[in-house]
Amino acid sequence: MRRKYKIDLNSDVGESFGAYKIGLDEEVIPLITSANIACGFHAGDPHTMRHTISLAKSSGTAIGAHPGLPDLMGFGRRYMDVTVEEVKDYFTYQIGSLQAFAASQGKRLQHVKAHGALYNMAVKDVKIWEAMAEAVSMIDKSLILIVLAGLNRADLKEMGKKYGIRVAFEFFADREYNHDGSLLSRKEPGAVIKDHQKAAERVKRMITEGKVSIKDGTEIELMGDTVCVHGDNPAAVNLVKQIRKTLSESKIDIVSMGEFL
Amino acid sequence: MRRKYKIDLNSDVGESFGAYKIGLDEEVIPLITSANIACGFHAGDPHTMRHTISLAKSSGTAIGAHPGLPDLMGFGRRYMDVTVEEVKDYFTYQIGSLQAFAASQGKRLQHVKAHGALYNMAVKDVKIWEAMAEAVSMIDKSLILIVLAGLNRADLKEMGKKYGIRVAFEFFADREYNHDGSLLSRKEPGAVIKDHQKAAERVKRMITEGKVSIKDGTEIELMGDTVCVHGDNPAAVNLVKQIRKTLSESKIDIVSMGEFL
Amino acid sequence: MRRKYKIDLNSDVGESFGAYKIGLDEEVIPLITSANIACGFHAGDPHTMRHTISLAKSSGTAIGAHPGLPDLMGFGRRYMDVTVEEVKDYFTYQIGSLQAFAASQGKRLQHVKAHGALYNMAVKDVKIWEAMAEAVSMIDKSLILIVLAGLNRADLKEMGKKYGIRVAFEFFADREYNHDGSLLSRKEPGAVIKDHQKAAERVKRMITEGKVSIKDGTEIELMGDTVCVHGDNPAAVNLVKQIRKTLSESKIDIVSMGEFL
Amino acid sequence: MRRKYKIDLNSDVGESFGAYKIGLDEEVIPLITSANIACGFHAGDPHTMRHTISLAKSSGTAIGAHPGLPDLMGFGRRYMDVTVEEVKDYFTYQIGSLQAFAASQGKRLQHVKAHGALYNMAVKDVKIWEAMAEAVSMIDKSLILIVLAGLNRADLKEMGKKYGIRVAFEFFADREYNHDGSLLSRKEPGAVIKDHQKAAERVKRMITEGKVSIKDGTEIELMGDTVCVHGDNPAAVNLVKQIRKTLSESKIDIVSMGEFL
Repeated sequence: MRRKYKIDLNSDVGESFGAYKIGLDEEVIPLITSANIACGFHAGDPHTMRHTISLAKSSGTAIGAHPGLPDLMGFGRRYMDVTVEEVKDYFTYQIGSLQAFAASQGKRLQHVKAHGALYNMAVKDVKIWEAMAEAVSMIDKSLILIVLAGLNRADLKEMGKKYGIRVAFEFFADREYNHDGSLLSRKEPGAVIKDHQKAAERVKRMITEGKVSIKDGTEIELMGDTVCVHGDNPAAVNLVKQIRKTLSESKIDIVSMGEFL
Repeated sequence: MRRKYKIDLNSDVGESFGAYKIGLDEEVIPLITSANIACGFHAGDPHTMRHTISLAKSSGTAIGAHPGLPDLMGFGRRYMDVTVEEVKDYFTYQIGSLQAFAASQGKRLQHVKAHGALYNMAVKDVKIWEAMAEAVSMIDKSLILIVLAGLNRADLKEMGKKYGIRVAFEFFADREYNHDGSLLSRKEPGAVIKDHQKAAERVKRMITEGKVSIKDGTEIELMGDTVCVHGDNPAAVNLVKQIRKTLSESKIDIVSMGEFL
Repeated sequence: MRRKYKIDLNSDVGESFGAYKIGLDEEVIPLITSANIACGFHAGDPHTMRHTISLAKSSGTAIGAHPGLPDLMGFGRRYMDVTVEEVKDYFTYQIGSLQAFAASQGKRLQHVKAHGALYNMAVKDVKIWEAMAEAVSMIDKSLILIVLAGLNRADLKEMGKKYGIRVAFEFFADREYNHDGSLLSRKEPGAVIKDHQKAAERVKRMITEGKVSIKDGTEIELMGDTVCVHGDNPAAVNLVKQIRKTLSESKIDIVSMGEFL
Repeated sequence: MRRKYKIDLNSDVGESFGAYKIGLDEEVIPLITSANIACGFHAGDPHTMRHTISLAKSSGTAIGAHPGLPDLMGFGRRYMDVTVEEVKDYFTYQIGSLQAFAASQGKRLQHVKAHGALYNMAVKDVKIWEAMAEAVSMIDKSLILIVLAGLNRADLKEMGKKYGIRVAFEFFADREYNHDGSLLSRKEPGAVIKDHQKAAERVKRMITEGKVSIKDGTEIELMGDTVCVHGDNPAAVNLVKQIRKTLSESKIDIVSMGEFL
């Protein structure tokens, strides 16, 4: 009997702030296995955090912290010249705030994933991944840190070991990749894959073969533990449904990363 | 052999923000037994939180969260019409953020004390104490909630039992009291006691006799577990030293509240 | 024979913030004559302010500042215990910020209207209207201050004279009133009038007869210069269209308040 | 015989925020001729803005806006990847807010100087100076924009003409320069000149000869209209006094830049 494939689906949720609503959280949370919950710096507020955890709890979705830069006006998408020490402090603060909401609902966090510019900074400079890993490990070694699949796989595995935490490699369902395993910049034509069928098939092939076709027709090796999907609009939610359908038909288990990492 | 008296000294610390420095934390933290650390809403920032915990750790001072209203411009001193639900959420968020910094330095929080307007709201409306107690109990039942000594003692004790947490009654070293055990408003003449010797003697008498003389010459019954002192300026630090001296001479132990409550 | 009646329609717009979008500004701005633009404290941001002015400019809608309390998380709807001096300073800051965006597009502000809790504070305490009038008059005496119609009409007229500014009395199209001319609390059943036809007829009668029927069947005298309408959702926009239709059929001119006050 | 040379002294002031105090504004404002007042993004708040203008008014010091990045926690010193459009919007918002405080005290702004990271971004990329110049010119063409002396002098002069505004070249009294006229990075040894006598002499020579000696012993040509001084601590204030003394002894007039540009 062969090992059955397992994959996690993660999405950024809990991004509303006060009177401002963003995202179809009620719809997307039951479709994913890991919810990345904003923690109040780039998005999210205390009420939203509590509410989002209760939504995830209802649908059995694992919860994680989604810390960002302190830039609500820019939604954490603008690079800021923060120090490594600041990255650690911002991670610690935000993870802690979500941990308390989880605890107060009898839950624990499963994972941590950096948001926006903070994530991109880490992709460009492995010292930032390291700062995140260190911060996470000093708070709770059972937390999984999500990193980008495709670059520095061995180094990032090693880093996880060094800090005594698990890392999860993340694949983007609807993004084109470069030869080196990095994401094709959103500024390039075709960077975002709009064809749901095609995106779902890519996810399936990444899982079953560890390969992704890229724009120039060649293919690269790429193995992910979790697939990033979105819930900001009805089309995004439909893509998640398409992915779930394609994977189910291929007998691929969709389960929270904490269960197989 | 009689029971020796024990008292805790608490002070608000960690109130700096970014480039802005407030408070003589380095001086006052070694003189107190419980440090109330601001958590970023009315004061404090991630770097300051981490640094303040490390100062407290060096001097063996117990640490606690000092959550406030989301009003940095008003330093959390302005009443805001927040709901009971918002109080719980703001408490949860801020306590959690500090817990993570404590965890990352191998420490745990001992207590929680509301700041400024949030504290005053609770003094005026016991539903707010209750919201705080509930929030605290849902995060960690080992946390002690500081409440004002002098009013509703039995009710607040009962509330602690209801939520399975300890409450600590707080006495203000340098404030005049009303007949009913409430604090004389700062707007009244003589509300703040400036004579250090007198203030220290009041603390001593409160501890050893459970009594405090008030302005009209009469005295009221008042028992506190912890005494609020300040570290914002050299005079405040001198008052703490005077209190320590007076209490030491009376063989009163100055220890963290967690050790005797 | 001249067309006699003139009325202004005002609506709160420009309330988006960063990635967060609120309001159907593109639809409602062409339907109103005075746009109250949020200025960054309770809602709005620099980009949104510039963009909202350009929308208003395109449709010839007069522009005004809509200052609020510094409470983005609460959308400026929560009462805060600010001083009269703080009200003046918050008004000055926010009006100035919008003036500069207007100037940079070759426009001038027509009016100022306080937002949410700040407006309600003034309704309850005329000293707050006075603080606003003083702040406005010290910046630019050509600015009109919007106040609630129905209470203290003579006093507010007098106040306007004292500070050398015009005041505009505001009527709420979809709100029930009390006997004394104050608004029926939103917490009361029927406080918000959902029947568009009925709301539009009330506006017409207020304009042509200076009277409004209230819940108990009696009627009160009430004269407004401007009618508050909303653009947060399609139903609200439809109400504006209904009001415009009803007023047009009655030969009532819908023009910016600055043209007839 | 006429007194030939004129120079302006500018300093960043009004940087307090709520309960947080920074800077010896009462001492330094009477010693300078142009006050750069923070406008609430990286520092400053409405109350502080009003108060700082009143201080400047008392001493006859000209006032200017000191806009920064929206990063209070980082005091506007951290580079943020903002767009040119955002720079213009942030400038417009902040300049406008200060203009209103000036108007309410019967004053007008003389100048605008970007703060911290925003200033440094412009030094590195002339497109940012251009965005600032455009924003300023669209608000009020009588405003002077302060730029760094030493680099691109002709281009910046030309830019001023293009936008119909005056530019003022700024010299740093206590900073070493590179060969190309840029500032030696603060990370380099000796980047900040601590000898007051030496700093004052450099200012004098820059004014009278248009020359500055640099670290390697050579000298560069450098002409400034305004000299940046500080008021954050007693030593900084003493440097301003030394500069005033040295310039007075050389019959150099210390006057607001608006009087001679």
